[in-house]
Amino acid sequence: MSAPAGSLLLVPNTLDLGAADAPDITEVLPFGVLRRAAALKHWIAEDAKTTRAFLKRVQAVVPLAQSLQATEIRELPQPQKGGAGAHGAAGRNEPRFDDWLAPALGGHDIGLISEAGLPGVADPGAAVVAAAHRRGVRVLPLAGSSSLALALAGSGLNGQSFAFVGYLPTDAAERTDRLLALQQHSRRERQTQIAIETPYRNAALMAALLKTLAPQTQLSVACGLSLPSGWCTTRAVAEWRRHAPPFEPPQPPSPAVFLWLGT
Amino acid sequence: MSAPAGSLLLVPNTLDLGAADAPDITEVLPFGVLRRAAALKHWIAEDAKTTRAFLKRVQAVVPLAQSLQATEIRELPQPQKGGAGAHGAAGRNEPRFDDWLAPALGGHDIGLISEAGLPGVADPGAAVVAAAHRRGVRVLPLAGSSSLALALAGSGLNGQSFAFVGYLPTDAAERTDRLLALQQHSRRERQTQIAIETPYRNAALMAALLKTLAPQTQLSVACGLSLPSGWCTTRAVAEWRRHAPPFEPPQPPSPAVFLWLGT
Repeated sequence: MSAPAGSLLLVPNTLDLGAADAPDITEVLPFGVLRRAAALKHWIAEDAKTTRAFLKRVQAVVPLAQSLQATEIRELPQPQKGGAGAHGAAGRNEPRFDDWLAPALGGHDIGLISEAGLPGVADPGAAVVAAAHRRGVRVLPLAGSSSLALALAGSGLNGQSFAFVGYLPTDAAERTDRLLALQQHSRRERQTQIAIETPYRNAALMAALLKTLAPQTQLSVACGLSLPSGWCTTRAVAEWRRHAPPFEPPQPPSPAVFLWLGT
Repeated sequence: MSAPAGSLLLVPNTLDLGAADAPDITEVLPFGVLRRAAALKHWIAEDAKTTRAFLKRVQAVVPLAQSLQATEIRELPQPQKGGAGAHGAAGRNEPRFDDWLAPALGGHDIGLISEAGLPGVADPGAAVVAAAHRRGVRVLPLAGSSSLALALAGSGLNGQSFAFVGYLPTDAAERTDRLLALQQHSRRERQTQIAIETPYRNAALMAALLKTLAPQTQLSVACGLSLPSGWCTTRAVAEWRRHAPPFEPPQPPSPAVFLWLGT
C-alpha cells in the first residue's frame, strides 16, 4: 500500500529581508504557518541561506522536525531581474523541477519559499508550482503577506482593478515611453499600476516617476512594509514635487513598491 | 500637550467567510495582528456583523480592550458589485470618512476591516484609506492574506506580470467580448488575468471561460483557499473541457478566484 501523496506547500516568508528592525516572526506570520514549516524536511527555495535564516526564526517558536543540517534545501536558478526572464515564467519547462517534486509522490510534503512574501509572486517560484500542477501534486498556498497586496491596500488607490508590471526598463528613454504608456492605460481602464525596483535604484525610479507622470496622477510609495520604520504615502505627483527630497531612501535600502493611478 | 496622533490600521480578515470548515484563527492570522485588533476601540468595516464575528474569534485568543458592545463599528456604504462602482473607487470624496477618521487626530488608532482578506483590495475600503492620506493620518497595513495573491501563487502562472480585472459583465455577449479582449491582452503582455465572481455564479463563469478562451490558454481556479476543503488547479482550457463536470461548486458556495494566461 502506498503512502498518501504529499503536497507542495507555498510557505510565505516575512517581508523584512536584511532589515535591522525586523519584527518578531509571530507578529507577521500565523502560528499555523510556523507549525507546518517546522514539520517540513524538503524545501525548494529562492535562496538557501535566507531559508536557513527563516527556519532559525521558526525554530525559536516551534521545534523543527529534524536538524537544520538534515533539512534538504534545493535552490532555484536565479532569474534575470529586469531582463527577459522578468516578463515571462522562465524555466517553466525546466525538467529538474519534476525530479525535485519526487518526494511528494513518495508521501512527503515539500515547502516552496521565496526570499520575501509569497513564492511565485514577483519571484522565480511559479515554474515549480506549474510543474506540480502538471504532475498532479496538490498545491497548498499557506496564509501570508504579499508586499504588492499590502502596498495596494495601503495606497487607497483603485483596488477593484490593478496590474503589477514588474520592473521598468533601466534605460531612461525606454522607461519614459513605458511609463507614459502605462499612465495612459491606467487612465483608460481606471487601473492602478504597480511596479518594483531593486532597492539601490529606488531613488532613481522615484525621480523618473516624478519627472514623467502627469501632475494630477496619484502616486503612492510603500517602503519597508511590516517594519517599525516602514511607511506608505499617497499624493498627487504635483504635491510630491513640492516636497524636497520627495523620497528619502532608508539605510540600508529597503524594498519599496510604487503605485500610480492616472486621472 | 496633545496626544500623539493615531493610525489607520488595515486589519486583514480571514478568507473563510461563512465556511462550515473555517480553520482556527491562529492558523491564518499572525498573533501580532490579533493583539493589535484586540486593542482597537474604533472600527470602520465593510460589514458590522462579520466584524463582530471576527472580534469574537480574536477574543478567544487575546482579551479585547473593551467589551464588544462598547466597540464602535461604523459600516461602509455598500458598493454596486459588478456595476459601475466596481470599476472605480466610488465614494472617494465621501465627506463622512473625514469625520470617521477624527478619532485618529485625537490619538486613537482606528481599524479598517473587510469581510475577507485585505481592506481596499477588491472591496470598498480604499476610499477610507484615500481619506486618511488626504488628512495626513498614518496608514499602517498589517500582515495578512489577499485571496487574489494566494490564488496567483497557487496558479503557477506568470507572477511577474498580472492584472486583477474584478467582476466580468453578467450579460453573455458583453462577457464574451471582454474575455476575448483580456485573452488578447494577456497574450501580448504575457500577463496573468485575474477575475472573481459572486459564489452562486461561479459555475456559470467557469462555463463561459471554457466556452470562450482558446484551448491552449492556461486556466487556473482557486476555491475555498485556507479551508481544509480548499483546492487550486491549473490546466489548459482543452484539458479542463475533457473533465466532466469541469467545476463542481462546493456547497455552500465558496469564493473562487479565476486566473488565465494566453499563450
